[in-house]
Amino acid sequence: MSRVFSTSLRFRLPVLLFLFQGALLFIFVLFTTYDGHTDAASQPADIDPAGNQLYTFFSLFQDIQLMLLVGLGLLLAFMKGYGVSAVAYNFLLSNFCMQWALIVQGFIYHYHEGKIHLGLYNLLTAEFATVAVLISAGAILGRTSPIQLLLMGLCEVPLYVASEWLILSYFQAVDIGGTVTVHVFSCYFGLGASIALYRSGLQTGHPKETPSYISDLLSLVGAIFLWVFWPSFVSVLVHPGDGQHRAVLHTWVALTASVLTTFAISSLLEKKGKVSMGHLQNATLAGGVAIGTVADMAINPGGAFLLGILSSLACILGFKYMTPFLANKFRIQDQCGIHNLHGLPGIIGAVAGIATILLVPDEAYGHQLYHVFPARSPPLRNATIEHVFIGETLGRSASQQALFQAAGLGVSVIISLVGGFLTGLLLKLPFLAQPPDQFCFDDELYFQIQKPLETLSVDQVDGDLQVPLKSKV
Amino acid sequence: MSRVFSTSLRFRLPVLLFLFQGALLFIFVLFTTYDGHTDAASQPADIDPAGNQLYTFFSLFQDIQLMLLVGLGLLLAFMKGYGVSAVAYNFLLSNFCMQWALIVQGFIYHYHEGKIHLGLYNLLTAEFATVAVLISAGAILGRTSPIQLLLMGLCEVPLYVASEWLILSYFQAVDIGGTVTVHVFSCYFGLGASIALYRSGLQTGHPKETPSYISDLLSLVGAIFLWVFWPSFVSVLVHPGDGQHRAVLHTWVALTASVLTTFAISSLLEKKGKVSMGHLQNATLAGGVAIGTVADMAINPGGAFLLGILSSLACILGFKYMTPFLANKFRIQDQCGIHNLHGLPGIIGAVAGIATILLVPDEAYGHQLYHVFPARSPPLRNATIEHVFIGETLGRSASQQALFQAAGLGVSVIISLVGGFLTGLLLKLPFLAQPPDQFCFDDELYFQIQKPLETLSVDQVDGDLQVPLKSKV
Amino acid sequence: MSRVFSTSLRFRLPVLLFLFQGALLFIFVLFTTYDGHTDAASQPADIDPAGNQLYTFFSLFQDIQLMLLVGLGLLLAFMKGYGVSAVAYNFLLSNFCMQWALIVQGFIYHYHEGKIHLGLYNLLTAEFATVAVLISAGAILGRTSPIQLLLMGLCEVPLYVASEWLILSYFQAVDIGGTVTVHVFSCYFGLGASIALYRSGLQTGHPKETPSYISDLLSLVGAIFLWVFWPSFVSVLVHPGDGQHRAVLHTWVALTASVLTTFAISSLLEKKGKVSMGHLQNATLAGGVAIGTVADMAINPGGAFLLGILSSLACILGFKYMTPFLANKFRIQDQCGIHNLHGLPGIIGAVAGIATILLVPDEAYGHQLYHVFPARSPPLRNATIEHVFIGETLGRSASQQALFQAAGLGVSVIISLVGGFLTGLLLKLPFLAQPPDQFCFDDELYFQIQKPLETLSVDQVDGDLQVPLKSKV
Repeated sequence: MSRVFSTSLRFRLPVLLFLFQGALLFIFVLFTTYDGHTDAASQPADIDPAGNQLYTFFSLFQDIQLMLLVGLGLLLAFMKGYGVSAVAYNFLLSNFCMQWALIVQGFIYHYHEGKIHLGLYNLLTAEFATVAVLISAGAILGRTSPIQLLLMGLCEVPLYVASEWLILSYFQAVDIGGTVTVHVFSCYFGLGASIALYRSGLQTGHPKETPSYISDLLSLVGAIFLWVFWPSFVSVLVHPGDGQHRAVLHTWVALTASVLTTFAISSLLEKKGKVSMGHLQNATLAGGVAIGTVADMAINPGGAFLLGILSSLACILGFKYMTPFLANKFRIQDQCGIHNLHGLPGIIGAVAGIATILLVPDEAYGHQLYHVFPARSPPLRNATIEHVFIGETLGRSASQQALFQAAGLGVSVIISLVGGFLTGLLLKLPFLAQPPDQFCFDDELYFQIQKPLETLSVDQVDGDLQVPLKSKV
Repeated sequence: MSRVFSTSLRFRLPVLLFLFQGALLFIFVLFTTYDGHTDAASQPADIDPAGNQLYTFFSLFQDIQLMLLVGLGLLLAFMKGYGVSAVAYNFLLSNFCMQWALIVQGFIYHYHEGKIHLGLYNLLTAEFATVAVLISAGAILGRTSPIQLLLMGLCEVPLYVASEWLILSYFQAVDIGGTVTVHVFSCYFGLGASIALYRSGLQTGHPKETPSYISDLLSLVGAIFLWVFWPSFVSVLVHPGDGQHRAVLHTWVALTASVLTTFAISSLLEKKGKVSMGHLQNATLAGGVAIGTVADMAINPGGAFLLGILSSLACILGFKYMTPFLANKFRIQDQCGIHNLHGLPGIIGAVAGIATILLVPDEAYGHQLYHVFPARSPPLRNATIEHVFIGETLGRSASQQALFQAAGLGVSVIISLVGGFLTGLLLKLPFLAQPPDQFCFDDELYFQIQKPLETLSVDQVDGDLQVPLKSKV
Repeated sequence: MSRVFSTSLRFRLPVLLFLFQGALLFIFVLFTTYDGHTDAASQPADIDPAGNQLYTFFSLFQDIQLMLLVGLGLLLAFMKGYGVSAVAYNFLLSNFCMQWALIVQGFIYHYHEGKIHLGLYNLLTAEFATVAVLISAGAILGRTSPIQLLLMGLCEVPLYVASEWLILSYFQAVDIGGTVTVHVFSCYFGLGASIALYRSGLQTGHPKETPSYISDLLSLVGAIFLWVFWPSFVSVLVHPGDGQHRAVLHTWVALTASVLTTFAISSLLEKKGKVSMGHLQNATLAGGVAIGTVADMAINPGGAFLLGILSSLACILGFKYMTPFLANKFRIQDQCGIHNLHGLPGIIGAVAGIATILLVPDEAYGHQLYHVFPARSPPLRNATIEHVFIGETLGRSASQQALFQAAGLGVSVIISLVGGFLTGLLLKLPFLAQPPDQFCFDDELYFQIQKPLETLSVDQVDGDLQVPLKSKV
């Protein structure tokens, strides 16, 4: 196998990106225009600028951008010689997927009069699709070339949009914080791809697959960025007013319970009671994953607290027992443990949603019931037979709604597992610059980068180290 | 002394956290509910969602979360082998204290009909109590186990709430940015605890008590995060409109004067004019501490400028002369120099408040006088004798208000010093996993962490260093 | 030459800062007061606090502060032993320039009744002037003392204000995102100064002028901070409503096209297809520079996309071919490559503005035409001959507006190049603590700092390294 040939990005990455950018430039120029909030010509003379949708979303949008690009980037930078790759690929992949999702969602939801109509709302929904891809990438991080990651995004975004449409529009399940549509979907998509990309050579680990002191610290800071802005992510699409306020409160309560639970359980399970950095970097966020579906429901702050505790507990037990089990018995390699942070807490959150719908009486919502559960609104006059079939706008009962929630969870798991596995098979094509085993988890393969000091060997310290002009001051 | 036994967190930290989380889960489930802004059932059908209190506080709340968890965390991470501990304990302690303050303040201020009523406002006030504990912890950082820090929070939060109640509700002193209630209180609480926890073995310093290049840089970045968002912290609770706008302006002006003063004084006092990193990381923030009490008063931008200069000057002189003096003469070890950043500027700010109240004529406030000084409003009709006694709602004169300000400062210092000292005695109990002298300032005691490269000894470089698979590309 | 004498900041930096702070304290106390949004006394009794200007700008102001102090600070920290200086000088210089711009702009635009009237709006415009200085500093970073940088700011701010006045007020050119007024101006000012400060000793590079692994990573994170908040910077001064919304959309679209273009072109041009960190840290931002002039014009999302592609392409080609050419042929040393990130994309953006004005029909703006192009409003009744001369308020045609845009670009380049060069000559004065060649790019010259580990020589590893108390746990 010609190593140098097979891993060089030259020509391959540019060609892929030029094709993509060329196609998108074509679509942007010919098929996009402004929406009602960005189009100058369509504004009435007496419009109130403060009513522009920009002000509903902008600061939350920025919070979420910071989460994705800085928070998630740093969180993924936990390996000693793969920090630059983690941050840079996260940056590349998120831009690629946001562009792609903008177009895919645009043609489906915002295409009329021959144009996709664009505004900040489109960016926001594209961001949700992008989150899914970034999470999936966590399962195969370090074992894949940027070309493979981009191709995965190319396949995953349309499947995400299809799955989300089935769950939210067809089944009219509710999942305002993306527990099922984003977290569960992205987890099983990533695991599906990982199964297809299994490498026996990495079964027993890799010498570079460890953190350094500083990479562990930066990764913890990344997790804290995510923790701080998680309420923005969960609440951004909630109906304004009390619903959005509840989502913020619940998310914060769940996250704070997760932090204390993580320290407790990690210290209990680990040798000498020393807290594990991996647990800190992940399980402190589990409550935020689990709370998404029920964020604006009347679960009481106590419900959010309980959900935070249970989801971090599941996350740590997953890291401790399930990840090794999956790797050994099912050959599922899960680099960043996305099944523990997104899969298990996601399923807990989905079940919590079903339980809440069944247990909390309608009176707890007052006039807001139909804002929280649109499909439970009284029937439309002009309902068609298809509306009847799926119960849409027919004033669903709570138990009917619960059934559609369960169906949504099933759809998410099935589409993502199958779609992920097929995508993984595609990524095995030989010309995608996949790194050979010994160059996995290594920034130097694709970046012009200084060797991180932590990887210096004794030989280098004795001879090769660059000795700069010494300062005598 | 059995070292391994005495410092292991196993069982002790989990037991403490499980007890706390169990109690809180119980309280959350049985005693909390939504407030008027988060309760769906109580919203009228025609409510305007834009009027929800969420939108008054949310973006400032996020700013402050970022300050506490990222900014303060990084600021405290200045020691070469204690960065992970600093960030992680800051994360743990702030979550513990926010939960605890939510409940303590909830039962005092938001308990009716058998329930604590929760919304974002509660989180915000809990955050202020938490800031106090995080600052206090700076006095004893590195010399204490996480169990000791949590117990300190458990004691300090109720005392903070009591002190704040006395100052703001009983004396009706004003202190909108927390100069006296947060900074002065936390400083003397921390010093009180530090006196009780004095260790002669650390009198002459500790070999690990030094920064590395990268820890100094990250700490500076943490200070800059705090600097950027400090106006949000000071202004969040100010009456909306011109008052809040003044608070932002004054805080910014004071902070900017602090930065220039810090560079000037540090360069003047230090050897060869080389600026001290410790000065940069602390004294640039002193203006923000001092401005709190007078933030919305009519001090003129020039007043804020002067306050910024004086407080950084005091801060640097404190680091240079007072910290060694206190350590040598009074056996007060102040790890992060909180007396210089919070104590001295806090007292300057409190005195500035008294002076402002005495010197600025009422006319400078126009219709806003009673928003800035509620206790100076005209008397209530149904005032009781107790109201009369403390002058409440009796249309206080400026000099009466000034007296109550002074009383507030006194209360803050006394409660915190005594409370801190007694708390410190409690923390000396033998089973709290306190680190022995030689393991202070060491991440490896409580965390599974890679050795920071800066602590590698020559021996390790020759023999022990892990040599990973070498990359040949 | 007495090296120790010539580079010591002691006395010189303090004297400069004390003089400056003394003068500013004097001006602040005697010549500043509140504006209509911060003055308590002038608020009517029935004012609506939500209408205060604070709420229009505060969250965007904070975003921009974060960009400047954290984002730009980290971005500049890419050299292995100059990270602390980069972050700290950026912090010092930005505070110095904001104070100075506050006063200069204050006397010109906000001075009446003997006072400068201050509020958040003043801080915001001062921030724009500051950005210009911080960018210019990038051309001479590492080769200058902090005293030189501050003196540069002292000269550049008034010239910036003059240039901006000519462009925006006299010519009434439009440049809402600062492409010409900020980026082009700052670039050529910096290059002008760099020409004057040319050092033949640094012609062939300097051994410390290289990144380390961690400095490259932190610099990338800084670039991402800038990337995330760039839409806030471009849109903050745009007319609220659809115009501001368009600016956000266009900026995001241009930035995202820049990211993908950067990866493609860098991989195409570099050896073995390995992506260059310098390209990533700079060219991903080029679209944000270029979009400023046209941000609120009706360029269609496709226009923004194209602009993003072209500007990053120019930026990378600039790094690859133009920077070495300028250095070798014209003796222009450009430390951070500001000509590639600010000069070339700035000129592209200015030309795009002219083209857009000429090509897009007025109908595309509807009622908003005069918000986007104020000088194209119908004539004032009381227009004077001077108004006629420059076409002001005379209902300019599109081509007239385009001419004034071109004039603005010319003014910006000429004032900045000449002003920068003269400033550079001033900075050559011998008593400004300029570092000798061998101590350039070295934190240790002006800061009390630990030696970064990356600069340890073999000798130090054998003998000098501080060996701390070894932990045995």
